[in-house]
Amino acid sequence: MSKRYLQVGMAASAALLALSAPALAQDATEAMASSEVPEYSVFVFNTTLFLIGGFLVMWMAAGFSMLEAGLVRSKNVSMQCTKNIGLFSIAAVAYYLIGYNLMYPLGSWSIGTDETGGYLGAFALAALEAVGVSADAADDIGYASTGSDFFFQLMFCATTASIVSGTLAERIKLWPFLIFVLILTALIYPIQASWKWGGGFLDSQFGFLDFAGSTVVHSVGGWAALTGAIILGARKGKFGAGGEIHPMPGSSMPLATLGTFILWLGWFGFNGGSQLALGSVGDAADVSRIFSNTNTAAAGGAIAALILTQILYKKVDLTMVLNGALAGLVSITAEPLTPGLGAATLIGAVGGVIVVITVPLLDKLKIDDVVGAIPVHLFAGIWGTLAVLLTNSDATLVGQVVPIIIVGAFVVVTSAVVWFILKATMGIRVSEEDEMLGLDKAEIGVEAYPEFGAGKA
Amino acid sequence: MSKRYLQVGMAASAALLALSAPALAQDATEAMASSEVPEYSVFVFNTTLFLIGGFLVMWMAAGFSMLEAGLVRSKNVSMQCTKNIGLFSIAAVAYYLIGYNLMYPLGSWSIGTDETGGYLGAFALAALEAVGVSADAADDIGYASTGSDFFFQLMFCATTASIVSGTLAERIKLWPFLIFVLILTALIYPIQASWKWGGGFLDSQFGFLDFAGSTVVHSVGGWAALTGAIILGARKGKFGAGGEIHPMPGSSMPLATLGTFILWLGWFGFNGGSQLALGSVGDAADVSRIFSNTNTAAAGGAIAALILTQILYKKVDLTMVLNGALAGLVSITAEPLTPGLGAATLIGAVGGVIVVITVPLLDKLKIDDVVGAIPVHLFAGIWGTLAVLLTNSDATLVGQVVPIIIVGAFVVVTSAVVWFILKATMGIRVSEEDEMLGLDKAEIGVEAYPEFGAGKA
Amino acid sequence: MSKRYLQVGMAASAALLALSAPALAQDATEAMASSEVPEYSVFVFNTTLFLIGGFLVMWMAAGFSMLEAGLVRSKNVSMQCTKNIGLFSIAAVAYYLIGYNLMYPLGSWSIGTDETGGYLGAFALAALEAVGVSADAADDIGYASTGSDFFFQLMFCATTASIVSGTLAERIKLWPFLIFVLILTALIYPIQASWKWGGGFLDSQFGFLDFAGSTVVHSVGGWAALTGAIILGARKGKFGAGGEIHPMPGSSMPLATLGTFILWLGWFGFNGGSQLALGSVGDAADVSRIFSNTNTAAAGGAIAALILTQILYKKVDLTMVLNGALAGLVSITAEPLTPGLGAATLIGAVGGVIVVITVPLLDKLKIDDVVGAIPVHLFAGIWGTLAVLLTNSDATLVGQVVPIIIVGAFVVVTSAVVWFILKATMGIRVSEEDEMLGLDKAEIGVEAYPEFGAGKA
Repeated sequence: MSKRYLQVGMAASAALLALSAPALAQDATEAMASSEVPEYSVFVFNTTLFLIGGFLVMWMAAGFSMLEAGLVRSKNVSMQCTKNIGLFSIAAVAYYLIGYNLMYPLGSWSIGTDETGGYLGAFALAALEAVGVSADAADDIGYASTGSDFFFQLMFCATTASIVSGTLAERIKLWPFLIFVLILTALIYPIQASWKWGGGFLDSQFGFLDFAGSTVVHSVGGWAALTGAIILGARKGKFGAGGEIHPMPGSSMPLATLGTFILWLGWFGFNGGSQLALGSVGDAADVSRIFSNTNTAAAGGAIAALILTQILYKKVDLTMVLNGALAGLVSITAEPLTPGLGAATLIGAVGGVIVVITVPLLDKLKIDDVVGAIPVHLFAGIWGTLAVLLTNSDATLVGQVVPIIIVGAFVVVTSAVVWFILKATMGIRVSEEDEMLGLDKAEIGVEAYPEFGAGKA
Repeated sequence: MSKRYLQVGMAASAALLALSAPALAQDATEAMASSEVPEYSVFVFNTTLFLIGGFLVMWMAAGFSMLEAGLVRSKNVSMQCTKNIGLFSIAAVAYYLIGYNLMYPLGSWSIGTDETGGYLGAFALAALEAVGVSADAADDIGYASTGSDFFFQLMFCATTASIVSGTLAERIKLWPFLIFVLILTALIYPIQASWKWGGGFLDSQFGFLDFAGSTVVHSVGGWAALTGAIILGARKGKFGAGGEIHPMPGSSMPLATLGTFILWLGWFGFNGGSQLALGSVGDAADVSRIFSNTNTAAAGGAIAALILTQILYKKVDLTMVLNGALAGLVSITAEPLTPGLGAATLIGAVGGVIVVITVPLLDKLKIDDVVGAIPVHLFAGIWGTLAVLLTNSDATLVGQVVPIIIVGAFVVVTSAVVWFILKATMGIRVSEEDEMLGLDKAEIGVEAYPEFGAGKA
Repeated sequence: MSKRYLQVGMAASAALLALSAPALAQDATEAMASSEVPEYSVFVFNTTLFLIGGFLVMWMAAGFSMLEAGLVRSKNVSMQCTKNIGLFSIAAVAYYLIGYNLMYPLGSWSIGTDETGGYLGAFALAALEAVGVSADAADDIGYASTGSDFFFQLMFCATTASIVSGTLAERIKLWPFLIFVLILTALIYPIQASWKWGGGFLDSQFGFLDFAGSTVVHSVGGWAALTGAIILGARKGKFGAGGEIHPMPGSSMPLATLGTFILWLGWFGFNGGSQLALGSVGDAADVSRIFSNTNTAAAGGAIAALILTQILYKKVDLTMVLNGALAGLVSITAEPLTPGLGAATLIGAVGGVIVVITVPLLDKLKIDDVVGAIPVHLFAGIWGTLAVLLTNSDATLVGQVVPIIIVGAFVVVTSAVVWFILKATMGIRVSEEDEMLGLDKAEIGVEAYPEFGAGKA
């Protein structure tokens, strides 16, 4: 069952117990003595979890902005900021107009059914509950308010788009990028997310497990970024004719560090909120496990990158440490609940190792990923999805591997189609002159640092 | 009724139901079956809402700091940081000493009554409930703790002062500005806020609706800023003799972007907390609506500015996009609950359009608003207050327009008096030499970027 | 009793009342009428408090990073970022492996007993509750989930390490610093923290009161920093032969300001979460008092520094204002609950005065504290611990002073031993050439600002 369905089911049973309480005093007493949770309480606690989780994940948009602003050169910083605030805004509208019901058809599939497997969700605007809704009229009294669910889920959709932004920095045009975001957040992300979290075929047929989205969110963003990076090509001068790689250091390490800390913080909402319930002893304890595991996985990723870059390069590479922490977070995202603290630390540490190893690998393949988003979100996302097998006995090898492939193929194909159409029509890459000049001057007209640095040149 | 009164009334009725439960087992059973919310629960949930909402709004002080630090030139950045942390600190003390009870007299008006219309609140220090207060001794068991209410409301007062800071940047002296903040947060803001949220005459006589403060907070800050900008005059060199306008680009676009994201995040607390209740199904769902609407209004404002600046200037203007998002947020603040997602997006989008249109307008009037706070907070604040008429049938044209005018007149007159007294006594403007030198060297003695940029010159 | 024990005791009594409710309808009715709080509700609210408090304190790690990145010179900024993300990661693992049970032996002392006084806690890995734990199987149903407790307490351990980082900036080697952090967070911090918060001898024998850690966290970090600063020596060129002091201004005031605002925000979690309970009227109101007092103490510290530096130096010193706010926060941390708003403001203001007076004092003693952490965390920490006597009648002079001395002696001695061993083995200080070159180039290989500033030189 889907995350959302499952939760609805579980909470509903608790609610039913409360609702079915006969009008006998003794039952009421028993209910109280056994800590039965009243339905209003489940609803309010779960809603609160979504609101807090949602604002934390929203905050990740700022994290991506700062990370990317720090990792691009100063002549492209305003562009990167513009892309990030633009993509988040577009995601908000696209998810309202199309994405939400496409992702959560609640059984009303356009193609497929809950039983035979859902493939394409419903087409309708997102609609919130009425103002001051009563318990009877709530869409799902045993779950949470629809508004909080929409708010929370929207942020995951936006995160997927944020991932794409960094990889393609410093040479993509603004508007084609934003149009890609529109398609990604209105269609590509919601459709594949419906397969798992909307109760679609990956969930019902494959028993695919992806708690908070190592695959559904992170690898999707990673695949879209990889596809775009290949079609777009590398930055001028990045890869020499003789195979040499020219580093293009980012303009501000403290901003990149700040971005990483923001993402780390936001991830508590990302993973913790994905428990989808807070209003019982077991749920509250589970959310706590998730917070602790999420934190320690990030720590594991950072420490692994710290040690490994010291060994490999005799100096610690801060950008690798930052990406190591992020890879640790991505790695634990598919299953932040079942591992113990030790396992979670190791799962995150492997993520950190993956980043240190695969960043140079991408360079060798002449795939130009400006911020390292493909190693962090795609490679560590695949690892995290497979790592579910290590600690959750409900996971099966087929149930994890096949959905990774299906989702990957779907995103690569659909993204490629969109990128190619954009390339053929409006073009996706700035001119060589504009790339040299910097996108801030060429497309934005607002320099990031007009008084110093490259802005002055 | 005032926001606070209204809520007290509603929550109290729920609490009374619980309290009046006779000592019969059947009633207890019924209460449980019908999801009656116990009073401790309402109190704890509402208090939690205020604490979370409050820390989110507190965080907006950091947002204003970063936005302004990014939008002023590097020679004035330390000054802007000093002003922001100073104004927030002064607001905290002023609201404790005078503001809180002036704003919430709880019926004990110095001038006026609840019935005939309250005009001037009570003069007393804010006092919190005793340590470990019992339910019986709580100030308002059906509402929330006084400490959380104080904490939450203080942040709105501080926000009002933050708005003024940016407009007057780069030429105002530190101490006169801080003294103005003291008057604004101790007297001007609380007095006019009492008229609406303290249950005063705008609330009781006019039925004025302003959910979270498009007028009460944002336009007040905007009016005070406008008054100050006119009295202070423009920066040297901003407006040429021949009518030409000289751009003075801000020193750091990533900091301005960060500030915008911080404000966007904090606004969930600003608007969501203003529901003033979380502990029931209806309240939790309403807070969720507010979160969703607030987010989408910001998105609407950003997208509108994105598209409009592209059309008008052939390049996207990042500062306009940032201010567009903020204007979207201000626009939805007067009524973030009743609109649907589509209406909220459009209300926000109009805010974004207003910013793009009115920023150059102010320049034409030679009013020098360094960060665009007047378009964002005043013009979009007026729009947002009028937009209540579109989605809330309780709003009346007179009930919205007249309070806008009354509050505006009050703030302009009182602010002007304070500014003129400060000008006549200690002077409000730095010398021409100091303005050229930069306020960081002239008044603060700590350069923002001593190693690079203008700081080096 | 320890914070944790005390709370367990109080909450348990409430839980017992609920649990012992006989199977009589009347009791159930009475329980509801008297607002008795059910145990699931206490557990969920308290757990939520820890999770929110925990993520806010985690956010303080970003605050320290930004504060320090802003206060060091640009050639050492990447190093400072690396140290901060590294120390936080190491603390996370060390606290899991050793620290948590060393700090909270729950009576299983390795040396001592609860009755005779505990001196050394238990050696065991931290273990969380099982997935989906039932109320019966929860470790402490009347308190909160173990996972949330671990998460929250870990962040205090990490904060202690963050404090050390800033003082020793610009001349310490990366790896010896990180090894020191490992010892500090695995052993030094948890052992002394067990004496108070684990129910050890400072708590049981001395009745020491330190609500959220003016001594247990802040002075410990301060003592470790002071010891390190003395052993490490001052930066080259900081103190001239003739006694003159050469200012070495920080590279970015907006980042330092941002860091301060982040810490201010995080402190609501730090102090508010230390109430350790949210699920009753009294606890919710107490957390609200704490939020309000914490905020006003910071304001008091900032205003005091603002006024005092203006008087002393004729210019406001922004770094002093920032540190003044932080000192206000440290000062209120030992007792954020019992003071009224006025007393809290004054306690914070004294903290601000301490900073302004003692920063130059340290310079005279040729102790080179790059960011002012010793005045802020150690001196204001001592002041805050003594200030408990002013508002909490349970505090005794001996009970406050002797623990300050014991903790100080313990940390100074153990830190010195570690620093000396590190100095004798791997060395703790970079070469003079590397110090001149900057640690970013020497040890990290990633410049903070490669395109401008010192990074260009």
